[in-house]
Amino acid sequence: MRQSKLFAKTRKEAPKDEVARNAELLIRAGFINKEMAGVYSYLPLGLRVLKNIENIIRAEMNSVGGVEMLMSAFHPKENWVKTGRWESMDDLYKVADSSGREVALGATHEEIITPLARFFISSYKDLPTAPYQFQTKFRMELRSKSGILRGREFIMKDMYSFHRDQDDLNKFYEQTKEAYVRIFKAVGLGDVTYVTFASGGTFSKYSHEFQTLTSAGEDIIYVDKKKKLAVNKEVYNDEVLKDLGLKKEDLVEEKAIEVGNIFNLGTRFSEAFDLTYKNEKGEGNPVVMGCYGIGLGRLLGTVVEALADEKGIVWPENIAPFKIHLIPLGEKGGTVEKEALALYEKLSSAGIETLFDDRDARAGEKFADADLIGIPYRVVVSDKTHGTGKIEVKKRTEAIATLLSYDELLARLLDSHA
Amino acid sequence: MRQSKLFAKTRKEAPKDEVARNAELLIRAGFINKEMAGVYSYLPLGLRVLKNIENIIRAEMNSVGGVEMLMSAFHPKENWVKTGRWESMDDLYKVADSSGREVALGATHEEIITPLARFFISSYKDLPTAPYQFQTKFRMELRSKSGILRGREFIMKDMYSFHRDQDDLNKFYEQTKEAYVRIFKAVGLGDVTYVTFASGGTFSKYSHEFQTLTSAGEDIIYVDKKKKLAVNKEVYNDEVLKDLGLKKEDLVEEKAIEVGNIFNLGTRFSEAFDLTYKNEKGEGNPVVMGCYGIGLGRLLGTVVEALADEKGIVWPENIAPFKIHLIPLGEKGGTVEKEALALYEKLSSAGIETLFDDRDARAGEKFADADLIGIPYRVVVSDKTHGTGKIEVKKRTEAIATLLSYDELLARLLDSHA
Repeated sequence: MRQSKLFAKTRKEAPKDEVARNAELLIRAGFINKEMAGVYSYLPLGLRVLKNIENIIRAEMNSVGGVEMLMSAFHPKENWVKTGRWESMDDLYKVADSSGREVALGATHEEIITPLARFFISSYKDLPTAPYQFQTKFRMELRSKSGILRGREFIMKDMYSFHRDQDDLNKFYEQTKEAYVRIFKAVGLGDVTYVTFASGGTFSKYSHEFQTLTSAGEDIIYVDKKKKLAVNKEVYNDEVLKDLGLKKEDLVEEKAIEVGNIFNLGTRFSEAFDLTYKNEKGEGNPVVMGCYGIGLGRLLGTVVEALADEKGIVWPENIAPFKIHLIPLGEKGGTVEKEALALYEKLSSAGIETLFDDRDARAGEKFADADLIGIPYRVVVSDKTHGTGKIEVKKRTEAIATLLSYDELLARLLDSHA
Repeated sequence: MRQSKLFAKTRKEAPKDEVARNAELLIRAGFINKEMAGVYSYLPLGLRVLKNIENIIRAEMNSVGGVEMLMSAFHPKENWVKTGRWESMDDLYKVADSSGREVALGATHEEIITPLARFFISSYKDLPTAPYQFQTKFRMELRSKSGILRGREFIMKDMYSFHRDQDDLNKFYEQTKEAYVRIFKAVGLGDVTYVTFASGGTFSKYSHEFQTLTSAGEDIIYVDKKKKLAVNKEVYNDEVLKDLGLKKEDLVEEKAIEVGNIFNLGTRFSEAFDLTYKNEKGEGNPVVMGCYGIGLGRLLGTVVEALADEKGIVWPENIAPFKIHLIPLGEKGGTVEKEALALYEKLSSAGIETLFDDRDARAGEKFADADLIGIPYRVVVSDKTHGTGKIEVKKRTEAIATLLSYDELLARLLDSHA
């Protein structure tokens, strides 16, 4: 894509009220815009990253047997009254229409999926099943100072699983936990993300959070780096450590962001909505449920927080908006630009996603913007390379550029996927 | 996909308060669920159709130079106050947070995209540009009796174009009009959808609606079937007919659904938000804008209304949730089911999207459900076909089944795309 056709541009500064580093960088680099506290729009570059993350998550949800659907944002009040959360959930938005009738804006979807499942689950033969969605949630966050890590409006992948008994849930829960580990590895956070024991509620000792270490984190966790496990501060005590076989002296206190969580809901919601199934003997039993969430914007913001350097964003290759940032240094319409344009077309035909900096700007500005935007490979065509059959290639994470031929560049891109 | 893994199932009846044929069929066939008046969830089958429609629209928007982004659902009140629509738009939802501060739920996005464009448009070199999105809108519809044709919550493709002058807008407007014609043809409504002249507002004589003929329509239009043009009742008078070169005697009154519309916004919003650009001489001018909408759920519902027959839904091939509905008639685990399963795997490996009816149900039920769901090709494996090297193939739109070999089936599928 031509950079001049992106609609958005890099900006000299973010709004003064933006205190989060993730949002400040993403706004300056042209990935998002802040509409109001806790509310952001995704510009074309930001949407490309979001879609890459979505596709990684979708493949993993499908791999554990999930099936995608899309639930509504408006929820009937009576469903929330039934579970007691109309009153108890502080951050639930309530909306009235002109007749004064109230509805909820969905903050989570147990109140929709559970009564919906009653239409389709009646027998053990209908179980297990695990619908999921990518959908916009609304939560009335009082402090919205964390950029896209904690929005009042945000896209979430939420999956809900339905089982005949606790054993079957446990099996699925473990499979999904492994799928989550693969997701956070694929988006580039594998090294800094820990399966973390947190409070479990009524139906199990623990829930599991996926916590990514970064100084921007709002959670405190205790990490055993060797065992690749952690414990959330909320359950951190001697009894829990003993139960988990962890030793105090192996644990380090860290700030972290919760990028995903999985939870045993037991029969909390199936009992509220009378969701039962008949077993082989014709006996009725409540369905056992689990839920599994990942906030996509939060995950995107966490990647920025965890990997950015002093020059700007650093995108992992799997989720980068483009693979290559192609920069010609030469006059508009001159030979260098023509050579760069030919290279752009060659890369595009080869299916390599390339952002072509066709702007009329100085070299310094182009380089600074490329570092800010954070595309994995910067490729420069200039008077220096013109006619040599080589181009200048620099990885965003490396300091030194290398002169490569087109074929060597392709080989390097392939290597990085091996 | 195996039908037993779809989460949703066909249902004997729709809710009693559902009076629209589109929603009644889609609910019974397991494509959507009604959460409350004007609010629907998309089940896995429904989401597949929605995504197919989205992909057709996306390709056409990209072809005219559109660039995809994603704006927020929450809108600052001050933006709507600035355009006067905080008070004047009756169907705007207003939401208060716990501090009593009000925001709007986006019913359309001029109030977001125009101030956003100020960051990126300053010179004639930045024009034209045309960001678009697929995003959920909220409108407080008082009557919600049309199923998914008129929701309180619905997904819309809205594109906004920005131009240096009226001539440039006109050029883009015509290109987009042609893209819209291609979209409605691709989703299977080409024969019954008419470019329709409607009221134009301050900045042009007419706007253009795309109206699909069906008895479920809420609009009245006057159609010249030879010229493939129509006039909306709101502007239907002698002067307009003369202006458009249409003759009263060539026009037929019809009910129709507005499936898309394009509109010249002129400088209405750029003046409200002071969106200007500098021309070659350095002179400041207001930016000229256009907007272009398609409601995806409405379009999906219109296809149902326009094409369904007495047995159920009829999906055009381009947007059908699956190409083939494969039905084994035989005992669970018997030779017929094994043969069908082998065929299912063969079709899936060939990349042909197939719904495999693996349910333990009688032939009559399977056939009735296949007609209700409306997948283009029904393929039956039975005792009758077993061992003959042939399978029974019936198009949803035809009465008679044909015995075909696997290769003949593939050839027929290819033909239908030619």
